[in-house]
Amino acid sequence: MTKKPYAVGIARRQQILEAAGELFSVRGYRGASMRDVAAQVNLTLAGVLHYFPSKEELLESVLQQRTDTSVPWFEQRWEETGSFRQTMMELAGRNMADPGMVRLFVTLSAEATDPTHPAHDFFVKRYRTSRELFSRTIERAQARGEVNSRASGPQLIAVLDGLQVQWLLEPSFDLAGELSRYLDTIA
Amino acid sequence: MTKKPYAVGIARRQQILEAAGELFSVRGYRGASMRDVAAQVNLTLAGVLHYFPSKEELLESVLQQRTDTSVPWFEQRWEETGSFRQTMMELAGRNMADPGMVRLFVTLSAEATDPTHPAHDFFVKRYRTSRELFSRTIERAQARGEVNSRASGPQLIAVLDGLQVQWLLEPSFDLAGELSRYLDTIA
Repeated sequence: MTKKPYAVGIARRQQILEAAGELFSVRGYRGASMRDVAAQVNLTLAGVLHYFPSKEELLESVLQQRTDTSVPWFEQRWEETGSFRQTMMELAGRNMADPGMVRLFVTLSAEATDPTHPAHDFFVKRYRTSRELFSRTIERAQARGEVNSRASGPQLIAVLDGLQVQWLLEPSFDLAGELSRYLDTIA
Repeated sequence: MTKKPYAVGIARRQQILEAAGELFSVRGYRGASMRDVAAQVNLTLAGVLHYFPSKEELLESVLQQRTDTSVPWFEQRWEETGSFRQTMMELAGRNMADPGMVRLFVTLSAEATDPTHPAHDFFVKRYRTSRELFSRTIERAQARGEVNSRASGPQLIAVLDGLQVQWLLEPSFDLAGELSRYLDTIA
């Protein structure tokens, strides 16, 4: 008897998180209101506030749910394929299969360059962690002779981020071709 | 007698454009209202609407005024310095001297990946043009033996864009060092 409403609550919460992720990715955090989120899931504003007392808390939950799993995923696939190059291409393919997620991170990281943005600290930390993890990955690839000494973690992240902006603006943009070309330059 | 009010109008218009550029760069186009712009320049909303009848027209004027002069500037400096590498480093320095402008373009291009954003077409065209121009620059640098055959215009734009996001988030990030490292990979 108590299980059903609980399950409904979980499902509702998840629905709100998905709608908010979608809205933030398209309009940005500042361009989307709690009323917009409520309208998207057919709830009243009070209904949404019951699950997430503020827009900031909603944003935090949206970001937490999308913890970056790229690096652990990458390490495992690299182990399996034995090729840094192939694994990087697969990582790009994985992102291209989820343009909504890419758009969410491109939009929010740009907005969050403003130090007063509620996701500013999140993105500063996220990039620090990504740089550390990808720097270690690059060092390992260098030790294995798979990439040259000029490649770097921050550079790799920048290339992917930059190519993704061009691809989001124009889906016919050859992201895979350009990434492949970059991988040739560091091979 | 007629000159003075005209000059006041020009100055006022310019003041509004600068305030709007600043607001859009920090809050995004969607996160900043015409009332915010008005408050910034001590005008009423009606006062701002006198110069710019809609937020879309204001955005258009903000973007038009900041036409990308990177490539003509680049070509001229390259002629003067005789070094592709040095000129790229100077271009990055030029951007770093104007973080507000960089932030404006990072924020708006991210927002504008949404096809319904009023600046969507502007950014699609802007990136097309930049890719064409930088591709020609890279070809010239290849012909002169200054960069290798794997370098490409879209790749160069992506590296700069991506490094700039990391730098805006964390001003201590070594953008120049990372760019220099990338230039080594394509030398």
